Amino acid sequence: MLSKKSKSSALHETDGVSQSDITNLSSIKKIQNKRKAKLDTETLVAEILNGSITALSRAITLVESSNPSHLTQANEVIKACLPNANASIRIGITGVPGVGKSTFIEALGLYLTDLGKKVAVLAVDPSSSLSKGSILGDKTRMEDLVKNDNAFIRPSPSGTSLGGVARKTRESIILCEAAGFDTIIIETVGVGQSETAVHSMVDFFLLLKIAGAGDELQGIKRGIIEMADAIAINKADGDNLKAAKLAKVEFNRALHLYPQKASEWQPKVTLCSALHREGISDLWQHISEYMDFTKANNYFETHRTEQNKFWLLQTIEDRLKSDFFNQPKIKEALQTQLQLIEEGKTTPFVAAEYLLTLQ
Amino acid sequence: MLSKKSKSSALHETDGVSQSDITNLSSIKKIQNKRKAKLDTETLVAEILNGSITALSRAITLVESSNPSHLTQANEVIKACLPNANASIRIGITGVPGVGKSTFIEALGLYLTDLGKKVAVLAVDPSSSLSKGSILGDKTRMEDLVKNDNAFIRPSPSGTSLGGVARKTRESIILCEAAGFDTIIIETVGVGQSETAVHSMVDFFLLLKIAGAGDELQGIKRGIIEMADAIAINKADGDNLKAAKLAKVEFNRALHLYPQKASEWQPKVTLCSALHREGISDLWQHISEYMDFTKANNYFETHRTEQNKFWLLQTIEDRLKSDFFNQPKIKEALQTQLQLIEEGKTTPFVAAEYLLTLQ
Repeated sequence: MLSKKSKSSALHETDGVSQSDITNLSSIKKIQNKRKAKLDTETLVAEILNGSITALSRAITLVESSNPSHLTQANEVIKACLPNANASIRIGITGVPGVGKSTFIEALGLYLTDLGKKVAVLAVDPSSSLSKGSILGDKTRMEDLVKNDNAFIRPSPSGTSLGGVARKTRESIILCEAAGFDTIIIETVGVGQSETAVHSMVDFFLLLKIAGAGDELQGIKRGIIEMADAIAINKADGDNLKAAKLAKVEFNRALHLYPQKASEWQPKVTLCSALHREGISDLWQHISEYMDFTKANNYFETHRTEQNKFWLLQTIEDRLKSDFFNQPKIKEALQTQLQLIEEGKTTPFVAAEYLLTLQ
Repeated sequence: MLSKKSKSSALHETDGVSQSDITNLSSIKKIQNKRKAKLDTETLVAEILNGSITALSRAITLVESSNPSHLTQANEVIKACLPNANASIRIGITGVPGVGKSTFIEALGLYLTDLGKKVAVLAVDPSSSLSKGSILGDKTRMEDLVKNDNAFIRPSPSGTSLGGVARKTRESIILCEAAGFDTIIIETVGVGQSETAVHSMVDFFLLLKIAGAGDELQGIKRGIIEMADAIAINKADGDNLKAAKLAKVEFNRALHLYPQKASEWQPKVTLCSALHREGISDLWQHISEYMDFTKANNYFETHRTEQNKFWLLQTIEDRLKSDFFNQPKIKEALQTQLQLIEEGKTTPFVAAEYLLTLQ
């Protein structure tokens, strides 16, 4: 009877190679595999820079993967893409469900592709992993744009933490830019902290609104209005037009109550009907003026640098947390400490001190 | 000529003690010092539990200190106080500058001490370290309450991060409760994230408002309104009364638009004039009803447990960050990486990966 090893050798010998050949072969294969992976990254980058949507999608999948080796390759790809990124405008769009975000983004996207632009639409929606309230989960909601060769639509990466979702989206922006997309639209829902995350990765932040129906209340969230570089009131058509015009006056007045923005830009309110593709060119005109204005006063560049610095710190904080809490011994001890807190037998601070000694 | 050592020995010999005696003496002193420190903590705790304001102030100073040995003693004191804490109501009060927070807190505090209660007033104001816009910096703003033997007023701890300020305040709550204070009022300013921090350490969250004058806009911050267990419209007197009554109707309507709170409590709007000490008893009645209601449906206890769990995680996150960023080599390397970002020579993610390898 043959041992496993000799069996294996025997098998190889039938192939006409000796044990030492096998060792060599194995080394060669390793080198080949390494070369293949290396080649893959190079090919991937070359194809991305060549505008291949398939390569772009594949690279974004690497970015979104939780596999550490994918992460390593993703970092290599991003680093290689970096010199070809940045040449775009990044536009954040937020609005509560019901304002017609998908219709609006499709209208804007089609308008821009008609102008010869290449438009990538990404999303930040931390809830999407739970498959509820997700945005862009269904590409059919932008069925004309999705068919367009100069448009690229990618749903929100999944993830339980906003930090993780935001990181993935931010890296995807770089990949899209390297693939030649000159207009990046980042969609987010009008709830939670996701606006703040999106605001910190875009050049221009648009708040989408509709007139009436309780929406005013949600809209006058001081934080969101302060972030907006423009407010577009959608569904300004038919019976809605009068109310939309009133809302425009109201929001214009509200905008003037806020202190001047760091960009020195004075945000405006515009009307539009995404359904009828009306008001889109006015809005684009407004965005173009913003670009010229902030590039002239140097805000555009300094703002991007500030955003990068913010993301450096944010990334470190996210990693420190996940490195700590993902340790099996910490996971276990944390459960015990939470139990002790529940029983009133420890304080949060004593428990924290204890857990920190375990790392 | 005597060497340093023999000189020293000679000196000791003139005191009539030998070298071995000195060693023994030094050991004894060490033990005595250790005993003294031990005794200090015990005495401090005993005096706090006895209601000594001096001891309470001293313990809070330990909590606020950045000296590691003070921190160790602070933790010992808190741990010892813990079984005597928790028997209080913790009330958070927020409102933008100008709503009359100090006058209101003084009126409420005096009303409660008249009822025989012991009232501690703390504050969370991350900006106070910069000596601008600080609250409670000047106790003279509550000069009647400060003279009251059953009241204890402590300004906001200083600190550059909200996390640090919040931790210190939260530990001070435990010390105040152990010292017999049954009503803890935590004041905060109506800006930034400090409301969220205060909301996460109190049982009842009160939003203080005034009618008119642009305040509506700031008030309809959805987040803050959602947090409020009651809204009190202050300065409801004289010429203001009519506007205040209108605002009451408006806010009551707004409150009903929000989904039911986890506590199942329906927040109300009350009118008051802190200056004339009017409406304070109605508000207290409202707070007492809340206490009865949430103790009956068990929300009070489960909410405190949830808050403790939240603070456990928060404390760990704060410590992970400060442990990382306070390392001299990280501080230095971070500056280099920020410079590279400024020059567009690296990405936030590549820079973060690099810095994380240095720890």
